[in-house]
Amino acid sequence: MNEAPIAIFDSGVGGLSVFREIEKLMPNENLIYFGDTARVPYGTRSAETIKKFVKSDLDFLFKFKPKFIVVACGTASCVGAPVLEAECEHYTSVISPSAIAAAKATKNGKIGVISTKATLKSGAFERKIKEIKPDAEVYTQASQMFVNVVENGWIDEDNEIAKAVAKEYLKDLKKAGVDTLILGCTHFPLLSAVIGNEMGKEVKLISSGYETALAAKMDLEKAGLRSTSKKPGTKRCFVSDGVDSFCELTELFLGHRVAKENVELVEVI
Amino acid sequence: MNEAPIAIFDSGVGGLSVFREIEKLMPNENLIYFGDTARVPYGTRSAETIKKFVKSDLDFLFKFKPKFIVVACGTASCVGAPVLEAECEHYTSVISPSAIAAAKATKNGKIGVISTKATLKSGAFERKIKEIKPDAEVYTQASQMFVNVVENGWIDEDNEIAKAVAKEYLKDLKKAGVDTLILGCTHFPLLSAVIGNEMGKEVKLISSGYETALAAKMDLEKAGLRSTSKKPGTKRCFVSDGVDSFCELTELFLGHRVAKENVELVEVI
Repeated sequence: MNEAPIAIFDSGVGGLSVFREIEKLMPNENLIYFGDTARVPYGTRSAETIKKFVKSDLDFLFKFKPKFIVVACGTASCVGAPVLEAECEHYTSVISPSAIAAAKATKNGKIGVISTKATLKSGAFERKIKEIKPDAEVYTQASQMFVNVVENGWIDEDNEIAKAVAKEYLKDLKKAGVDTLILGCTHFPLLSAVIGNEMGKEVKLISSGYETALAAKMDLEKAGLRSTSKKPGTKRCFVSDGVDSFCELTELFLGHRVAKENVELVEVI
Repeated sequence: MNEAPIAIFDSGVGGLSVFREIEKLMPNENLIYFGDTARVPYGTRSAETIKKFVKSDLDFLFKFKPKFIVVACGTASCVGAPVLEAECEHYTSVISPSAIAAAKATKNGKIGVISTKATLKSGAFERKIKEIKPDAEVYTQASQMFVNVVENGWIDEDNEIAKAVAKEYLKDLKKAGVDTLILGCTHFPLLSAVIGNEMGKEVKLISSGYETALAAKMDLEKAGLRSTSKKPGTKRCFVSDGVDSFCELTELFLGHRVAKENVELVEVI
């Protein structure tokens, strides 16, 4: 029994898709969410800058003495990996769980990964997939614009903009014949319908949010860190800028709106 | 005669569209460009954060003892206005020149403004237009996604994504019957063809880049600050992150690529 919180962080709001899955899978855990909205996006920045950001995000979260850290940001997960390994005792990122799920799911060995430029440049998804399945062929596509599509709320499967962006980004992956596609950014699961329609039903989509939440649960159980409380856990949200915009976007990501009073503005340097 | 540089700054690369116009109009001036690429975008952040950023941008630029500051960022121009007024002796932002040009150009008194959320929330364009033309009707539309469209290089007039985004963003302005449209973000002039096609030929587009460069030239002449050199001026670029990405984007904005050796990485806090 351990009532310390699970701390989930992201460069912005996308990590809420992971938060949502963790909340569903482990409703009795106390959760802390931190979105570094003052410095979002991480995905287009240099590796040195991203590592510096991850270090300061962790310094902030450690104040709450979390028992487990969930890095709900593809870019922070892979570019920040050396910092995470050095600083965290128990953590999971979005990379390994998604890579493992994809390596298991593929039948023809061709796996696609869509994510940010920085994540793909790090090669982390590819390395992890090949650790598990050395003969896998991995095809990648930087898809930053899906983030903007989601944050505009253009996630309906009939949305013309979402469809046009999906067509552009996914054309080479379709041509390559991937049978499995990792949605390697925590915003992307919200576009599952659009991406699924474009790729075709035979392509299996791997949602980093769900896989990461599942991995976190298994790791916590293995380490004997799960809460035994019968009550719903507490939830606290922190952002480094724009409480109002954050609250607006919670509706999209969580299916319900987090009230302004429940979001705290913090300065993280 | 004054050989001190003109300093142009933006939250990122968009200000290069203003830089280009200034270079064309005043080829003999020494120019400094600073893109705060470590903290881009400004347009989605809170007013307090934006003001803090503008203050630190100016502190950096003042080291070069510039004779004139050009704020080539819609968001910094209007949200940062109190800081600019307090700190700068000679400067122009993108707001006044564009507002004046639009107020002069309109025939039916209906002016549209597309820009970032933060710029429009400040009401700066609307106030400036109504100072000049009190009976003008101003219609605004936040159009953040055009920035991403431009930075992806999707600026061709036949690009399906650019067209879909333009259709979505411009529908209400078309319905309102505006005859003049301010491209109120320094990225947007690159989408003139797409935006022009969507709005129709009878709608006059006001490019903030061109109008701002023209205003800077007039202000410099009035203040007796123009260079009398017969030689082309020197150009220096500074960014706070991602030199490589910046260089890639210069081609799009300037029509030629700035070499890596000519871009300096600086830390601005």
